[in-house]
Amino acid sequence: MLPEFDIRPGIATLPASPIVEIANYGRSLGRSDLIPLWFGEGDVPTPAPIVEAGVKGLRDGRVFYTVQRGLPELRAALSGYLGRVHGVSVPVERITVTGSGMQAIMVAAQMLVGPGDEMAVVSPVWPNISAAVGVAGGTAVQVPMTLGNQGWTLDLEALFAACGPRTKAIFVNSPGNPTGWVMEKADMARLMEFARSRGLWVVSDEVYARLVYDRPAAPSFLEVSEPDDRLIVINSFSKNWSMTGWRLGWMVTPARLGPVLENLIQFSNSGVAEFVQLAGLTAIEQGEPFVAELVERCRAARDQVMAILGSLPRVRVQPPAGAFYAFFQVEGEPDSMALARRIIDEAGVGLAPGTAFGAGGDGALRLCFASRLESLKTALARMAPVLS
Amino acid sequence: MLPEFDIRPGIATLPASPIVEIANYGRSLGRSDLIPLWFGEGDVPTPAPIVEAGVKGLRDGRVFYTVQRGLPELRAALSGYLGRVHGVSVPVERITVTGSGMQAIMVAAQMLVGPGDEMAVVSPVWPNISAAVGVAGGTAVQVPMTLGNQGWTLDLEALFAACGPRTKAIFVNSPGNPTGWVMEKADMARLMEFARSRGLWVVSDEVYARLVYDRPAAPSFLEVSEPDDRLIVINSFSKNWSMTGWRLGWMVTPARLGPVLENLIQFSNSGVAEFVQLAGLTAIEQGEPFVAELVERCRAARDQVMAILGSLPRVRVQPPAGAFYAFFQVEGEPDSMALARRIIDEAGVGLAPGTAFGAGGDGALRLCFASRLESLKTALARMAPVLS
Repeated sequence: MLPEFDIRPGIATLPASPIVEIANYGRSLGRSDLIPLWFGEGDVPTPAPIVEAGVKGLRDGRVFYTVQRGLPELRAALSGYLGRVHGVSVPVERITVTGSGMQAIMVAAQMLVGPGDEMAVVSPVWPNISAAVGVAGGTAVQVPMTLGNQGWTLDLEALFAACGPRTKAIFVNSPGNPTGWVMEKADMARLMEFARSRGLWVVSDEVYARLVYDRPAAPSFLEVSEPDDRLIVINSFSKNWSMTGWRLGWMVTPARLGPVLENLIQFSNSGVAEFVQLAGLTAIEQGEPFVAELVERCRAARDQVMAILGSLPRVRVQPPAGAFYAFFQVEGEPDSMALARRIIDEAGVGLAPGTAFGAGGDGALRLCFASRLESLKTALARMAPVLS
Repeated sequence: MLPEFDIRPGIATLPASPIVEIANYGRSLGRSDLIPLWFGEGDVPTPAPIVEAGVKGLRDGRVFYTVQRGLPELRAALSGYLGRVHGVSVPVERITVTGSGMQAIMVAAQMLVGPGDEMAVVSPVWPNISAAVGVAGGTAVQVPMTLGNQGWTLDLEALFAACGPRTKAIFVNSPGNPTGWVMEKADMARLMEFARSRGLWVVSDEVYARLVYDRPAAPSFLEVSEPDDRLIVINSFSKNWSMTGWRLGWMVTPARLGPVLENLIQFSNSGVAEFVQLAGLTAIEQGEPFVAELVERCRAARDQVMAILGSLPRVRVQPPAGAFYAFFQVEGEPDSMALARRIIDEAGVGLAPGTAFGAGGDGALRLCFASRLESLKTALARMAPVLS
């Protein structure tokens, strides 16, 4: 009789993503009218010029092995993009193209933590962060933000206090998934200063930097750091340009990590398809109007969703400053997974349970509002009886 | 003053792939007439029907997040493929689609080895195997084959003797890269029996199973195992269907690993682009004539390359039974990296140095003959003065 999995215990006992769990549950019902708002993606496919760049790459035979850290022209375009958006100068030597933001996070975890090491992670946060740390053999120590009348706030002193002798890195995601929290530049500077003084790495997931509603872009740690600082910035094409399914991201690191990244990419997936990278190049070069449109669409959706959720007496919600999620509590419903299942069963709407997002997340639900207003209104109308 | 990399020592000191190293050297010269035979890929782009399936997927909007273990229709097609090629019945529950054979190897390493654990690896072998074991925290223990007048042979007793109390798995690649060695079914059965008796996993890289010159397909461990055996079979679309740059592979495992794989895929790259998977589906469904053509092309190339190499007095080479490499020694040239550089400098031909392939590989060079005869002849003519 074989043990259940018969593999490394730490891998066998990795918790499944509750987001994947609820989506698998929802899909298993085969309900054709289900409105899926559980993932961090919209319902608009990739813009046509980006798709056609991928098509051209395919038909031009860009289908061979490629350089590990990304096509030079894409890395150069990303350097220009970071200059335009954040006003920073990032040479191509610091830029590595990855097969998704997720891969960039996994590679960062592999570089920074092993058995006995800790990464402090500001939560509530996307569950895959802590999971990647676990796969690398390390331990994620979650430091929860608190929800008050001004929205989510991070107590920097509490974060610093959570960093002990085993801590190697601090993970921050701003604008935050699921909270929509945006870290201000002054706080980033303080955190960077603390990390410097302690020799810690900062891993900053800035995937939602463009999805912010009170300014053109959220602050980046690139704006408060030096080229040689222990800083890894993670980003992705998924959200800005509706490319979730393409699996394309990038990371910015000190240039000295270049040879290590060349190795880790080689040994993880051996690089990203060139035709996918060429589509990404078009996204960077021609995608600004789409980003602007996406932000406006999300702003309208946010206002609508907040108005409707806010009118339900049991719901406690605040408008997020960034990202595209409503992360809301429902009075008298402490079990978010049970509630998410009930909303699928009774309303045919797929939400992510707050329990997925670690410390500070339970008792909440996450709704992605990057969809057409009509779908959102239908979803909210169907959910209202369950939430009332 | 920061330490050089300032990250986990085991990751900072990962050796670079000498194949990547030589390719970077060759590319850095900017020589337009260079004939690159260093990678395991041909010079023929992906067949048009496969490309067009990818194009259709892109234009049909198959660009959203997807299920983690692969599209059900692709998994079903792979089950059928394994039945046709190896005469085995493999249910879809045992099949997981991955973002390259490399990713499958990394995921296998993550499941099986951590710090203190060993994986016995039959060498000479593609360097990325041992590297993936290292990234996972484990140690690869190479067990070299020997080259005699009958070609490469594996001493099974030596392999068994290399398995100690720390060994968790045995890695075999047949047909072998770079040797072309093909493990016979009886030896596979003996190895499987040994692994069973010791509670070890077998990881079998069968990427070249179709590239074999004396039968329709090389034997697979699937033919000598039970569904619940500790067996992981790795495969890829890269070689059979000229899809190296697409990054698409698959793995067969005991069904009980399904939930673990769902997690590890989620936390590595969160699944493979649907339009890439749809191209893979077309490869399985319509790609047999291409495989037949590829094998014939490689057989002709092999014969030609062997004839020419064999005529050079300093060269020692034997025709490989499988895969598409000539792996040959040159008398008086023990430093394969130096020789590979000299061949780039003096002949404008890119070969992989034998030192890349671990124990048993040094002093040899690997030439991939999956190219047009004309290129190969030109390359060999240019190399002849260096090798004479």
